[in-house]
Formats: sequence, structure tokens, C-alpha cells
Amino acid sequence: MTMPFDQTNQCPVARALDVMRDRWTFLILRDLRNGAKKFHELQHSLGGISPNTLSARLKHLEENEIIERRFYEDHPPRAEYLLTVKGQQLRPVIAALKKWGEVHTTER
Amino acid sequence: MTMPFDQTNQCPVARALDVMRDRWTFLILRDLRNGAKKFHELQHSLGGISPNTLSARLKHLEENEIIERRFYEDHPPRAEYLLTVKGQQLRPVIAALKKWGEVHTTER
Repeated sequence: MTMPFDQTNQCPVARALDVMRDRWTFLILRDLRNGAKKFHELQHSLGGISPNTLSARLKHLEENEIIERRFYEDHPPRAEYLLTVKGQQLRPVIAALKKWGEVHTTER
Repeated sequence: MTMPFDQTNQCPVARALDVMRDRWTFLILRDLRNGAKKFHELQHSLGGISPNTLSARLKHLEENEIIERRFYEDHPPRAEYLLTVKGQQLRPVIAALKKWGEVHTTER
């Protein structure tokens, strides 16, 4: 029987999902796809996310070169987050989810 | 501050992610996009998934009308799973993940 690790290794969909780890990761991509955002802006648009969870997800995305941090102020240091070229190429994933959500789900 | 529930409600991407709940949900879609599969076939192609988790995800997808169950044998009753029309329209999401995974991730 194929083990999960091997299966992840062989399938590009599974490998992409290793990076796009959970709901928050997708929603961060959604929020950055139209331009850079600051930590507090992401925290606001992501509603219920805790600062620790947001930090962890941003770190994960940065380590995987999906996003980068850019300092827009030195004293005190303040950063904003933006998509890398590699991250921008995930936009079709978000666009496809959006299109499906618009057609097949409704506001409660 | 926007609450998560409201945010989910207003955004089609978030609503789509409510249905595409986790990694397994995406991988089940991947496996059904080329035709019907039996429970044990899914269990095999999903490697490490437990039968309980697979049952729960299939039930969730069935309740959301993404997949349907079709009986191919009556005695004993045996079912296979296939995408509904609504489920088939999620194929661009999987295709976009696949394309990105092929370009930006590599086998270990």
C-alpha cells in the first residue's frame, strides 16, 4: 500500500496542498492577490484568526517563497506582506474557488 | 471587527472553502475527477486515510451534493462514488493546484 509520504511526493496536487496547508493559507492568498497588506489588515480581513496562527501561516508561506515581507518603515520596523511570482501563480486556484463559490453557494 | 461567520458568509472563496474543508476533501475530488471509485479504491489512493475519516469526508461531500453514491451491487449492497455536476465544476480548482504543483514543487 502506498504510504502518505510517498503519495504526497508523487502527486503534484498533493504537493501543492502541502503548501496550501489549510483554510487560512487559502484566505491569506485571497487577501494578498490584489496587493500588499500589513499584519493588522490581514488580521482584520481574516476575522477570527489569532495573531499566533496568522504569524505561523505567514512564516510558513514565507518559507515556501509564496509571500515575502517588505519593510516600509525602519523606526520602528514595520512590514507588509506581498505575493512573490511563485505566489502570484496560485491566483488561478483562488479564482477557481471564487467562481465555484459564486455559482454554487449562497450567503446565509 | 468582522466575525468569522459573517466573513464566511460574504465571501465566495470562504464559502467554497467551507465545502472543500481540508486536504482529504481536495484529494477525494482529485481521485473522482476521472470517474467513479469504490470506497476501497479511494482508501488505497489516499494512502494514510483511516476508514472513519474517509467515511466522514464522503458523507460531508454527499451532503453538499459534490458527490453521489451509486449502488452497483444489491446483495450485498455495494456502492461507488462519483462527482455530481456541481462537483465536476470544482475540477478547475484541482487542475489549477496540479499545474502549480507541477511547476513549483518537486518530488523528494
